[in-house]
Amino acid sequence: MLQSFEDRSDPSQVAARVEALRSAIAGHGLEGYLVPRADEHQGEYVPRSAERLLWLTGFSGSAGMAAVLRQKAAIFVDGRYTVQARGQVDTTVIDVLQVPEAKLTEWLGANAPKGGRIGYDPRLHTIAAVEALERVLAEKGLTLVAVAGNLVDAVWPDRPSPPLGAVVPHPDALAGRSAADKIADLRATLAKAGEDAVVLTNPDSIAWLLNIRGADVPRTPFALSFVIAPCDGRPQWFVAAGKVGDNIRGHVAAVADVRPPEALDEALVALGAAKSCVRLDPDWTARDFLDRLTAAGATVSRAGDPCLLPKARKNEAELAGARAAHRRDARAVIRFLAWLDREAPKGGLDEIAAAMKLEEMRHETGALLDLSFETISAAGPHAALPHYRVSRKSCLPITPGSVYLVDSGGQYRDGTTDITRTIAVGQVPEEARERFTLVLKGMIAVSTLRFPVGTRGSDVDPFARRALWARGFDFDHGTGHGIGSYLSVHEGPQRIARTGSVPLEPGMIVSNEPGYYREGAYGIRIENLLVVTKPEVPAGGERAMMGFETLTLAPIDRAMMVPELMSDEEVAWLDDYHRWVMSEIGPELDGADHAFLERATRPLHSGA
Amino acid sequence: MLQSFEDRSDPSQVAARVEALRSAIAGHGLEGYLVPRADEHQGEYVPRSAERLLWLTGFSGSAGMAAVLRQKAAIFVDGRYTVQARGQVDTTVIDVLQVPEAKLTEWLGANAPKGGRIGYDPRLHTIAAVEALERVLAEKGLTLVAVAGNLVDAVWPDRPSPPLGAVVPHPDALAGRSAADKIADLRATLAKAGEDAVVLTNPDSIAWLLNIRGADVPRTPFALSFVIAPCDGRPQWFVAAGKVGDNIRGHVAAVADVRPPEALDEALVALGAAKSCVRLDPDWTARDFLDRLTAAGATVSRAGDPCLLPKARKNEAELAGARAAHRRDARAVIRFLAWLDREAPKGGLDEIAAAMKLEEMRHETGALLDLSFETISAAGPHAALPHYRVSRKSCLPITPGSVYLVDSGGQYRDGTTDITRTIAVGQVPEEARERFTLVLKGMIAVSTLRFPVGTRGSDVDPFARRALWARGFDFDHGTGHGIGSYLSVHEGPQRIARTGSVPLEPGMIVSNEPGYYREGAYGIRIENLLVVTKPEVPAGGERAMMGFETLTLAPIDRAMMVPELMSDEEVAWLDDYHRWVMSEIGPELDGADHAFLERATRPLHSGA
Repeated sequence: MLQSFEDRSDPSQVAARVEALRSAIAGHGLEGYLVPRADEHQGEYVPRSAERLLWLTGFSGSAGMAAVLRQKAAIFVDGRYTVQARGQVDTTVIDVLQVPEAKLTEWLGANAPKGGRIGYDPRLHTIAAVEALERVLAEKGLTLVAVAGNLVDAVWPDRPSPPLGAVVPHPDALAGRSAADKIADLRATLAKAGEDAVVLTNPDSIAWLLNIRGADVPRTPFALSFVIAPCDGRPQWFVAAGKVGDNIRGHVAAVADVRPPEALDEALVALGAAKSCVRLDPDWTARDFLDRLTAAGATVSRAGDPCLLPKARKNEAELAGARAAHRRDARAVIRFLAWLDREAPKGGLDEIAAAMKLEEMRHETGALLDLSFETISAAGPHAALPHYRVSRKSCLPITPGSVYLVDSGGQYRDGTTDITRTIAVGQVPEEARERFTLVLKGMIAVSTLRFPVGTRGSDVDPFARRALWARGFDFDHGTGHGIGSYLSVHEGPQRIARTGSVPLEPGMIVSNEPGYYREGAYGIRIENLLVVTKPEVPAGGERAMMGFETLTLAPIDRAMMVPELMSDEEVAWLDDYHRWVMSEIGPELDGADHAFLERATRPLHSGA
Repeated sequence: MLQSFEDRSDPSQVAARVEALRSAIAGHGLEGYLVPRADEHQGEYVPRSAERLLWLTGFSGSAGMAAVLRQKAAIFVDGRYTVQARGQVDTTVIDVLQVPEAKLTEWLGANAPKGGRIGYDPRLHTIAAVEALERVLAEKGLTLVAVAGNLVDAVWPDRPSPPLGAVVPHPDALAGRSAADKIADLRATLAKAGEDAVVLTNPDSIAWLLNIRGADVPRTPFALSFVIAPCDGRPQWFVAAGKVGDNIRGHVAAVADVRPPEALDEALVALGAAKSCVRLDPDWTARDFLDRLTAAGATVSRAGDPCLLPKARKNEAELAGARAAHRRDARAVIRFLAWLDREAPKGGLDEIAAAMKLEEMRHETGALLDLSFETISAAGPHAALPHYRVSRKSCLPITPGSVYLVDSGGQYRDGTTDITRTIAVGQVPEEARERFTLVLKGMIAVSTLRFPVGTRGSDVDPFARRALWARGFDFDHGTGHGIGSYLSVHEGPQRIARTGSVPLEPGMIVSNEPGYYREGAYGIRIENLLVVTKPEVPAGGERAMMGFETLTLAPIDRAMMVPELMSDEEVAWLDDYHRWVMSEIGPELDGADHAFLERATRPLHSGA
């Protein structure tokens, strides 16, 4: 099993650890120290060796920042994690505060003495984040001080070693383009911008550029490493020797120099000595690189990671892989839904049993390499927490008459999946069915939208909400995120959200997952993955329009729908979708599973 | 008649005038000079004395910029004005170039010698615009040079005097708040921002703040003047004595010092001597103010004009005025539509006759103070030009079997109106009716939208386009703009457009005017004005939602619709809207006009 349901936090240790950190803070003449969730690569998953926030505070969520002063300490988390943090943290030692209502800078201004120095590890904070903090703290009479060597590491006796996951080649047949080809494009981009080199610190970008995959962190198959790619000459890949077998060394050596991490400093100094102009992405790159390059004499060009957009625009081979991965994943998901349909109404199932059964079905594909994120297996009120993760302690039974939500995905060599379905266990109240139908209307509105070149994710997002808004409801997350090709399940730069300022382009994969959450009662989310299609002039029209091709194949629970709330067009979309699911996956199922899918995909107006 | 249909441009003069300007350019040691359409206040309408671009080039549109070099000259206009500019300008002397495809900076870079100095009048360009130009020109080896005294004025022998329109009080009963009250709020805003004063250069803001109206430019009832409002103490209003009668002097003197324009320099110097922190809106304020304040020793705080948002949020008195103005205007518009319905199918009408009849109807209200903009009276292919203005030369007949578009508005003491209707003159082709129906679907989608606090105009805009996008159509302008209260018909900061980043707030008035344009053939636009309503929780819902109240009352031409393309909800909205128009305005009409409205507002499915 890839999943563990243990609670990894231990509040009993928090007081002693915070005191140890305070000694280190005092020893450095600081008033305080910042402890982010991030590692040196700013990914969503970090290795155990970088789980400093968890070790110090007990908080195991994927985003947060602790600030420890000599007398007080606080952890800042967003709304999805407030309840969890209060349960995991020793709140007699650390206050749990919710952003954006609470602000780190205001808390520091109110609690640190004027003139105080607040330390941070410049390898763990981005250029943009540090500059924003510096500016606001200066207004409050505080100074942000980069401290060499991490102070948490200094007091963490049994800190795990950094991971040495084996790197493997990602076949050109799946990548659709050779690394040499991608590197040539990258060099052209740098030449056009008049830059001498770029430092890549995002392991996603490195995995894409070099056509490799790794095993350093859970759920995301990349290798923690760095690249310096010059405008002229071969990229240098800085990676621990223990991750690189002979086969991968040869694979990469054809296009790049494989160098040990210790050589990075020398390479940065060389860029400085050559008075190079070096691109850094201020939103992804650690401040440390800016400081080291500037000190060495280089000039820094602030611009986006040049791999982000080409990586986001999936090519035909990657899309073929995505379709194959989704078809494979669909069979596993549908077998799980069929099992759930048979077992859940009897009572006796719980969140962990369901999550394990779903993983088992995915293993039975014979192709599962990892989950793409922690499965959200949420019964009743837990489904109202959009990022709920079940543990032995939290596990609830899945009771007849309730709504069960499952959001999960798999990592396959040819693609990454992510799907959410919300299931009526037996008969559920009319209210939940009404809300489900409103969510479904939004999900269909996005699926069927046609839109011109230049349309941004922010232009699409409101369509997911209109039906909810009309009745006085909404959901407090974006409608969708980008997804990688056997890479991160959350991949930018595109997203369908209020903040989605990047135009959607053909080949981009996005999730379409509106929801509705009634705190303490139940939650609803329906999620398919979509590919942005090429611009085409609709018959009889004048202008080329893009649209979405749906990747995800699984029935949407008819028992959750109120058909009278749906328009003819919406019913037609649903019936078409179900017909497609049945025709694609039906032939791969037998017995009770086949019968289930047949029942689950029949036309909406054919009755219960 | 307020309208003139003469063509005011005279291409025959252009060559001589450009040569005269070139002498002045050479005399100042410059390589070139910029001539914008703007005056010192950046409004959409400028007085004759500021129509330098028209005088120099012959181009009479509302936006554009000429650049005159020693050998070459060009005028840069946007897509709506390219055709017009080619017709008005002597293109043997001045090239007509379309932005954003053509760029002023690139043209200067390509045509001016390296190291060249390009002059501009710092009173006519905003801070933000100059900085953007400076940066890009520097990259091309050119220097932008502020020149004291306008070079066009120096060679314009019979330049009209600046206007001296009489200022009148705007009654508190219509403004809804006293000037003293608004000034107190303004001072609180400055105090909160830690600013000592603000310079207001936008006459809209000054008219709103002081509860006055003026008569310096056509169509917009404000007074060209400046205000310096300190955080502590009384505002100073710098205005030509000839505009200020005793009654207005007393009205304003209660809350502000009335000072001659010549005293402005001394007041800026005093701000500098006191080392004041002065707010300037970089998007509205002329660069000249930044230079003078900085030279005098002041520091400048770049922040938005503090009147914009409070002005945009109409209070109950302003909304009551808007409703009354719209009801009054509606009767005039409907009487015009009834006349058109009787006369147009016979043939013999033309664009000017229709525009004059509409103005006549508005005059008959007895309350019309001005039009709110130049009437767009557009037959056949002219309607495909969204900003068409009819002249004797361009005037087309309104022929049976064609589509006629009329976009117009009035200025009344209690409100500003703006309405567009597109009319089938006799039987029109199915294609135009299909496109009209798609536009109407977008217009209804916006009218019926409910949305939460924080929703921006950019979130609303895509709803106006979805039905067009679905069939491969679109329109190349925003869906709507803000409107003033007996002030500018185009008023920010809110707008319903891709660029509408300002959240919509209760009381804001916006237009809702999607369109469709088929070049050389016909054009369609349907426009109502809407007020953003207060947030209210819909029955059975959980979250407060805003929405739109419709102000505009006039039938939408049923003969243009394809009912089969409309949903039941859309038909219901239309029938409700028409029922409301009939119940509000029907009782004020008689005879043939009443019969027309009855016919025009009957339910869609009641047949032709």
